[in-house]
Amino acid sequence: MTELRVGMLGCGIVGTAVADLLRSNGPEISLRTGAALRLMRVAVAHPEKHRRTTFDPGILTGSAAEVVADPRVDVVAEVIGGLEPARTLLLDAIERGKSVVTANKQLMARHGPELFAAAARAGVDLRLEASVGGGLPVIQFLKESLAANHIREVTGILNGTTNYILTKMADEGCEFDRALEEAQQRGFAEANPTDDVDGHDAAAKLAILATIAFHTPVRADDVYREGIRRVSPQDMQFARELGYAVKLLAIAREDEGRVEAHVHPALVPLTHPLAAIRNEFNAVFARGDAAGEMMIVGRGAGGLPTASAVVADLIDIARNRRTGARGRVGWDALEARPLRPMEEVACPFYLLMQVTDRPGVFARIATIFGEEAVSIASIVQKSRGQVADIVMVTHTALEAQMRRVLSRIESLDVLHAVRDVIRVTDGG
Amino acid sequence: MTELRVGMLGCGIVGTAVADLLRSNGPEISLRTGAALRLMRVAVAHPEKHRRTTFDPGILTGSAAEVVADPRVDVVAEVIGGLEPARTLLLDAIERGKSVVTANKQLMARHGPELFAAAARAGVDLRLEASVGGGLPVIQFLKESLAANHIREVTGILNGTTNYILTKMADEGCEFDRALEEAQQRGFAEANPTDDVDGHDAAAKLAILATIAFHTPVRADDVYREGIRRVSPQDMQFARELGYAVKLLAIAREDEGRVEAHVHPALVPLTHPLAAIRNEFNAVFARGDAAGEMMIVGRGAGGLPTASAVVADLIDIARNRRTGARGRVGWDALEARPLRPMEEVACPFYLLMQVTDRPGVFARIATIFGEEAVSIASIVQKSRGQVADIVMVTHTALEAQMRRVLSRIESLDVLHAVRDVIRVTDGG
Repeated sequence: MTELRVGMLGCGIVGTAVADLLRSNGPEISLRTGAALRLMRVAVAHPEKHRRTTFDPGILTGSAAEVVADPRVDVVAEVIGGLEPARTLLLDAIERGKSVVTANKQLMARHGPELFAAAARAGVDLRLEASVGGGLPVIQFLKESLAANHIREVTGILNGTTNYILTKMADEGCEFDRALEEAQQRGFAEANPTDDVDGHDAAAKLAILATIAFHTPVRADDVYREGIRRVSPQDMQFARELGYAVKLLAIAREDEGRVEAHVHPALVPLTHPLAAIRNEFNAVFARGDAAGEMMIVGRGAGGLPTASAVVADLIDIARNRRTGARGRVGWDALEARPLRPMEEVACPFYLLMQVTDRPGVFARIATIFGEEAVSIASIVQKSRGQVADIVMVTHTALEAQMRRVLSRIESLDVLHAVRDVIRVTDGG
Repeated sequence: MTELRVGMLGCGIVGTAVADLLRSNGPEISLRTGAALRLMRVAVAHPEKHRRTTFDPGILTGSAAEVVADPRVDVVAEVIGGLEPARTLLLDAIERGKSVVTANKQLMARHGPELFAAAARAGVDLRLEASVGGGLPVIQFLKESLAANHIREVTGILNGTTNYILTKMADEGCEFDRALEEAQQRGFAEANPTDDVDGHDAAAKLAILATIAFHTPVRADDVYREGIRRVSPQDMQFARELGYAVKLLAIAREDEGRVEAHVHPALVPLTHPLAAIRNEFNAVFARGDAAGEMMIVGRGAGGLPTASAVVADLIDIARNRRTGARGRVGWDALEARPLRPMEEVACPFYLLMQVTDRPGVFARIATIFGEEAVSIASIVQKSRGQVADIVMVTHTALEAQMRRVLSRIESLDVLHAVRDVIRVTDGG
């Protein structure tokens, strides 16, 4: 029986779940794979602290560097999170010829290409399934299952908190603030929700997925990003009347050698499979030139689902060890491709405007659209006394065109407010 | 650059798509994986026949045995289908130490355990992604992505033809015969539809998935099977009123060491992710003890999607070859577990009955349910003159109990017909 001796860095929610999972399913895993996973060393900030999960003597240590350097450790699993010291520790492990597993989204979204390159040079395995989508096997899906495909698009609902909030708003017609409060009470949102609701979390995940799908470095900062704070119950209702759901989408596409990546609220046709993803569920939709359209759905967070992905990666490395393979799924072919600036991204747009309800107003607005060559697909006008709501959906237009339209409309004296502008997905 | 020299057996729809895909995406695949896939020999029934795809001289041959025996062939990809000669050819290749890839559902559903055992003995890779669900990566999902989990359930919509027909019936309120005719006209159903509509195709696929998920031999003949011919537009409508969709489900579960596997129409709660799978799409829903509930969705058939899975398997073997690994994802731990007889499978049941509309009839029916200890969850009675429709949903009951209830009800003089009995899934 091959043994894979694991050194784990960190033992918070995910690390504890990894230890528990190895304990409960370890014997079955050994039987199935012919390889035993042994938790050899675990680095924690306070080794003396009382923990729910107990470890044999000598396993816990306060020094992560010691775990990485320990010659009895074959593979390093990093579940600390954050950029440093995680980055330095992983690079150290890789240089020592150890394969590594990471659940670290921020690190991979910012320094992924550097780590991939180091692993390729050292000929070791770098696996990162747990860094995106908890237990959802999106990395293996893109990197191995779709390996025969030229991937054209990866679109995901990558943040469970915002999907929960948007589902709540759609079902109950409530405002963003109330839905957020309920998500916080139910443990689906943090006290400081900005990482989720402003799209940072989804942008980091999308950077990782785009890097893998399109074989080009895409960093979190390369991803255009808008959060869901401006989405209103009115938007939800108008969208539904028009046949759409409102979702926070993370969209990456490759076309003519250029890659675009953006996170923002989007109107998704109710017939699109992503429209049916509710509550805290995550989903990744991908389109390959051979396999066609596919989607994976599941819970994208939580200790045990994330541990499921960490341990699956450890099993993969154990299978390599048993058969003498290293660096089996390589990372050595990243080529920098130009990113498409957001201004050159095209889609239809939904707009909700409040205008003074008097003759000629609509003509002035329509004239601006016409002059900027943005054609209008549908219009609904609802009068509310002195003020009218205008809901518009355009045909496909460039972001740059739409920005010109908006800046001209916003200077009209008859315009009270452009309440919201939401991009529309064309249904895949 | 590692080269993997492929011998392909068969060149029909899938084989032609494999050749086309290797041609179009081959250079990119080599670049990404560090391994070149080279189509070395292709066995076809009529090598002299004109084909859409052309091959270099010397590649086509009429003898599959020659391809298997050719020392220049590293790996054998079988896309002939059927039991023989596919089984003998694959066993021959395995004994010669060659890894094999197969798209053969019937073969794997009947002789899978024999082939797994032979591959384990020879230490070669046997990959079968294309045998279930076309391009959907369900095998890798269950066998690798969920490797850390004890899998509790695998439920799928595994047949696109029947899902198309049921979607049509639900949307348009039409009869089975008309929906089948339309599916045939649109190329979604065969002239002889029995393999699809009677559940044989789904049962074979479920046998493969259950074998993999539960590590026990499950053969197509072990799977209890009912098709969709009896499903009526009335069932569709009553189901919807009760909050369900009607789907042909393939269900496999493991509980207390026993495995159940059955294919039949089922009422699926509209809130269950499988209820949203429409038209010719396939989906596999799985539940692991760590990862929780997950689902994969995509087109489950077609030349190019299936070729995507065949080539992904070849890439996996090429990655093994490049790094010197063989028999990496083993098959050596199948243990025979007892199968749960259908009589001992429990679920709620939906029944649609036509009875004489006169006092006391319902009491007689209810008495039988009570005497057999099957409790009733809901009842709708709709009078149509002399005859009334009774729609009932029971609480969870054993198949055996339900069969006793049915045989007693059917002997009542006031009963015109038990129009349909459909099992209800409990929402996962």
